[in-house]
Amino acid sequence: MPSAEPAPDPHGGASDTLGSIGELAALARIIPRLPASAVTELGPGDDAAVLRAPDGRVVVTTDMMIHGPDFRLAWSSMHDLGWKAAATNLSDVAAMGARPTGLVVALAAPAETPVADLEAFAGGLAEACAALAPGCGVVGGDLSVSHTLTIAVTAFGDLEGRPPVRRDGARPGDVVAVSGPLGLAAQGLALLFERGVDETGAPDAAAAARLRSEHPVPIAAQLAPHPPIADGAAAAIAGATAMLDLSDGLALDARRVARASGVVIDLDGRALAAHGTGVLALTGGEDHSLLATFPPSVTLPAGFSAVGIVVALDEHAGGRPAVLVDGHVVDERGGWDPFTEWSGEAD
Amino acid sequence: MPSAEPAPDPHGGASDTLGSIGELAALARIIPRLPASAVTELGPGDDAAVLRAPDGRVVVTTDMMIHGPDFRLAWSSMHDLGWKAAATNLSDVAAMGARPTGLVVALAAPAETPVADLEAFAGGLAEACAALAPGCGVVGGDLSVSHTLTIAVTAFGDLEGRPPVRRDGARPGDVVAVSGPLGLAAQGLALLFERGVDETGAPDAAAAARLRSEHPVPIAAQLAPHPPIADGAAAAIAGATAMLDLSDGLALDARRVARASGVVIDLDGRALAAHGTGVLALTGGEDHSLLATFPPSVTLPAGFSAVGIVVALDEHAGGRPAVLVDGHVVDERGGWDPFTEWSGEAD
Repeated sequence: MPSAEPAPDPHGGASDTLGSIGELAALARIIPRLPASAVTELGPGDDAAVLRAPDGRVVVTTDMMIHGPDFRLAWSSMHDLGWKAAATNLSDVAAMGARPTGLVVALAAPAETPVADLEAFAGGLAEACAALAPGCGVVGGDLSVSHTLTIAVTAFGDLEGRPPVRRDGARPGDVVAVSGPLGLAAQGLALLFERGVDETGAPDAAAAARLRSEHPVPIAAQLAPHPPIADGAAAAIAGATAMLDLSDGLALDARRVARASGVVIDLDGRALAAHGTGVLALTGGEDHSLLATFPPSVTLPAGFSAVGIVVALDEHAGGRPAVLVDGHVVDERGGWDPFTEWSGEAD
Repeated sequence: MPSAEPAPDPHGGASDTLGSIGELAALARIIPRLPASAVTELGPGDDAAVLRAPDGRVVVTTDMMIHGPDFRLAWSSMHDLGWKAAATNLSDVAAMGARPTGLVVALAAPAETPVADLEAFAGGLAEACAALAPGCGVVGGDLSVSHTLTIAVTAFGDLEGRPPVRRDGARPGDVVAVSGPLGLAAQGLALLFERGVDETGAPDAAAAARLRSEHPVPIAAQLAPHPPIADGAAAAIAGATAMLDLSDGLALDARRVARASGVVIDLDGRALAAHGTGVLALTGGEDHSLLATFPPSVTLPAGFSAVGIVVALDEHAGGRPAVLVDGHVVDERGGWDPFTEWSGEAD
């Protein structure tokens, strides 16, 4: 937790870098731009923050974003990164059926990083919280130096008296439903790798900017996604039996629910096709949409649409948990593994 | 939050790296070594964890450790790093007067990192929690790939019904007291920079190992500190009026208390000299000892010893908050600023 002793004037020169003005002066410019949290009892400036946990329990999730494997600065603005860092963590809180309350944000950046970039990052955090989870804000953080731009967010949520919606509660007969896009973020990433590059294949800012104006929806889904955060609590209130955040693609994430719950999930090919993203609706990651199962008697909450049904183990697929599309088993496939699949490149 | 689906056999080959076995297999070997938390209601394996917050509030702090500015692998073992990452964050929780309950740990490492190193890191986390804050454990985490070894820990604590002990509550007449060493960690760091290096001045593992056997106390204070975690809650129960974790040195951290509280802190030169670390008792950082102020009527809790008194503003130092030693103003000095002071070197 930084010991912020902000200078009186939070405005600085456009050419200032973290290295030229130092940690405390940078924090004095960043902290005022961070979104406030409604549960803050004691905010930044002491050894630790204090946040209210009215339910007596706290939902906690953490995720790191690393320059290279997780984003490219030629494609993502610092505002995008603040937005995405908030959105992806908020989505994990929502997937437990909780309402997001706060974030702590640790950021490590090269000394030559313009302070204006950090201000833009804080602005992205603020706009994402305001748009996706009003009342949620930043309750603390840390600012460090590193050769590798690294963002580590821990997000908190309140269960409001409800049990958490785990991934192991899907029961035969349940309806499988999704809120949010399927395959759109992967479509955006494919576009970026195909056309957001220069003649050598390296990510290129000008090419990406042109691409974003031509295909704003899939590019935004990849760089600054809008997961349906409020739908997580709504699903829990409606009686969702299992839920998770679609980070690795529907096929893989549905298999996680199937395995944890000991069931088979049979997806409806026509419902997937309606997303207009082809096979990416099944395999594309990073949508951060919500996948949930509901008892058949439940009217699906706004935002959710049915994409399949839960089937008992002994009715399909050799008695093993599996994911089917229209009754046919979807081949085993892994999600993105950063350790085996990242090329090592960042530029 | 990683979606851990551990393989049945948590034992693997000594030559395995993160890149050779991938994220899920690595997590299956690491997760069983992590310390359990007594407040875990739902642990790793879902989108988010759920931890109990019996007080209805949660103390939260976060800190990153980056290879280069914050540690050198020639000096610190991975076990040391796990220990220190836990200890330094637990100390920030303790400094609020809270009892630590849980940690979330995000780690980003190069793909060529041996999995055994991550097991050792988990062992360091577990031993630090067991030794410093029994009942506290890891409630969640994230594992990522990066060229730069990066550790981001967020720690939680419970106030047990007490108000947080902030840094702004010191009052004239209070006794200033410290629990834990003063200057020892800086003495260890100075030894490492002087004698833990090769002939070119670069950190050297063999030289550091020799040094550690010759000077185990200051070297351990730097690489694997034992901050007096339980003394934080004890100080709060005893009635501490202000408290913080000594991360930047007594002179600088006492000035933070003086400024926040609007008082002067007059330190006792003989009490500082008794620490045997010379001027480092005043200027050395990273001890993670606790600095607290107590009303004069209070019997200091075990572990604390008096190092000064709190004086009203108008009695000293031109009416401004300041730190004195035996009545003489201590010159303004800054703490370590990673952005302006790190050389950029890691090896």
